[in-house]
Amino acid sequence: MIPSIEWTAENKVKMIDQTVLPHKLEFLEFDDFRAVANSIKVMNIRGAPAIGVAAAMGMALATIEYKELGKENFLKKMENAANVIRMTRPTASNLFWAVDRVWKIIVSFPDNPSNLSELVIEEAKIMAQEDINVNKNIGKNGASLLKDGDVVLTHCNAGSLATVQYGTALAPVRAAIEAGKNISVIADETRPRLQGARLTAYELHYDNIPVKVISDTSSGLLMKLGKIDKVIVGTDRVTSDAVFNKIGTYLVALAAYDNKIPFYVAAPTSTLSLHETIKDVTIEQRDCSEVRNILGKVQIVPDGVECLNYAFDITPFRLVTGVITEDGVFTPEELLKKYKA
Amino acid sequence: MIPSIEWTAENKVKMIDQTVLPHKLEFLEFDDFRAVANSIKVMNIRGAPAIGVAAAMGMALATIEYKELGKENFLKKMENAANVIRMTRPTASNLFWAVDRVWKIIVSFPDNPSNLSELVIEEAKIMAQEDINVNKNIGKNGASLLKDGDVVLTHCNAGSLATVQYGTALAPVRAAIEAGKNISVIADETRPRLQGARLTAYELHYDNIPVKVISDTSSGLLMKLGKIDKVIVGTDRVTSDAVFNKIGTYLVALAAYDNKIPFYVAAPTSTLSLHETIKDVTIEQRDCSEVRNILGKVQIVPDGVECLNYAFDITPFRLVTGVITEDGVFTPEELLKKYKA
Repeated sequence: MIPSIEWTAENKVKMIDQTVLPHKLEFLEFDDFRAVANSIKVMNIRGAPAIGVAAAMGMALATIEYKELGKENFLKKMENAANVIRMTRPTASNLFWAVDRVWKIIVSFPDNPSNLSELVIEEAKIMAQEDINVNKNIGKNGASLLKDGDVVLTHCNAGSLATVQYGTALAPVRAAIEAGKNISVIADETRPRLQGARLTAYELHYDNIPVKVISDTSSGLLMKLGKIDKVIVGTDRVTSDAVFNKIGTYLVALAAYDNKIPFYVAAPTSTLSLHETIKDVTIEQRDCSEVRNILGKVQIVPDGVECLNYAFDITPFRLVTGVITEDGVFTPEELLKKYKA
Repeated sequence: MIPSIEWTAENKVKMIDQTVLPHKLEFLEFDDFRAVANSIKVMNIRGAPAIGVAAAMGMALATIEYKELGKENFLKKMENAANVIRMTRPTASNLFWAVDRVWKIIVSFPDNPSNLSELVIEEAKIMAQEDINVNKNIGKNGASLLKDGDVVLTHCNAGSLATVQYGTALAPVRAAIEAGKNISVIADETRPRLQGARLTAYELHYDNIPVKVISDTSSGLLMKLGKIDKVIVGTDRVTSDAVFNKIGTYLVALAAYDNKIPFYVAAPTSTLSLHETIKDVTIEQRDCSEVRNILGKVQIVPDGVECLNYAFDITPFRLVTGVITEDGVFTPEELLKKYKA
């Protein structure tokens, strides 16, 4: 397990370039918040918790860039930086959460901004460490749901690569294996960006955890054939009525429900947005080229034919068996009781 | 619309090479039944009705090859040819149906086989023409289900390219448009072989019928957003309890059911196998390279990671609104009443 993102000693943001995985393990380094924002947008880094930390680190870079300005100008520039970062992936709840968290430090700072950047950098580093701690707890809580021999289906990548380290949906798998259980994973390839085939398979194989890849069309049949015991997915946002996660999640949830297979969502509390409902969420539509040209390499759709490319799916609470947070495992009803103010 | 397969004046089998679509429109010609069998196996030709006709034409080529043999040897060789053809795609019901239909002529023929090939060639040509007629009737029957302005989701390709001509699942769309209705199609790309993106999009665009392509992960969300009015898919085999069709069909049916969207199956009676149940059917497992390497061009799964590749899906009757045959539209119960002896 390599950290997907870190703050370097030279005050740069260093991240794995996930667009070239699994073929190459390459790192990117940025000292400009705009470049970090772009890396979120083009998905060099992705996964709700990881882009939360990337957003905070991007904000930290902006404070360095603007630290010579007077307070008023500084705040104006920082507001712009926050907006640039927020707009990169509109569905990800903890992108907003991370920017807001850093923002509280910025606005509470009394006078000139020159020392502020130290504080923001510190906060971003704390958030990175907190993410790892949260994931370890999700792992511990989720591992109790897994039996020796279980085959776990996951969709997209909510693993180490989607977080700073350890993962959310894959955390229970990692923790159960660390506890001595035999667990294997089936990964939906997860079109259009193929995060399951490329990233989930890569990181599990890298850590010697058994994994097989299937096309997204196959999960229902495999459940029917009794080849899947549990489903665990991550999430980008949990509202009071639904889980928002990678496109295709709803279909997996329907199949799990129809086959009486438990469907769990690993959700750090930073993804909880329980004051919202389905109606409040904008589903990101990404460029059609992601459907048309697989990884920019093979055109599969004839010239002249359009595509549709919604990035996230809506999975209603009625299909969710349990939500795994850093605090425990909750039914949707229990989740609302515990976290909805 | 170009016929996907035909018997030429030179006694050859000519077919569109569907593996190179949508980039190139190329034709293959065979005078050896083994080559025809191989073309079914590697999916130069695919789609239940089309491979039924290809099987019959393959048998016709075999009768030409063996026509100088005495009756006993001839029958032995023909039996072998029939098996070679049957084994190419074990889930397709009308592959068996087509071979059996030709076989009845072969065994009923009184003495020497030299004139028999004429009869078998004639039968194969009749089957090709019958396929077109059946599809036109499916179109007429199915068109009555479509309203002006409907958006129809289809999975895989059960269009003109999957038949000799006109298609099964796409026949109602074609017929409704011919009747003056505005109908548009959303095509699931249909991993792993991408028949939806490559073939359905190609043939509809070729015929100026509006079509958009989505990843297989998207159908559920689009239904939730109200962007799909009807689903029509083809089938490879209908048993007394389920529809067997391309992997992914079951997920589409679950989503349609959950969103109260009618789910129709276009099924020529040659695909009906109502004496069987789910338990009797072997689901073809194809080579994992189809998942690992997209169209043999882009490796998406890391080295050392396995894949699973089941080719067909099981959609239970409870999820099926109606079955469209050349005789009419039937609920599953009505279908059993009408066709189950």
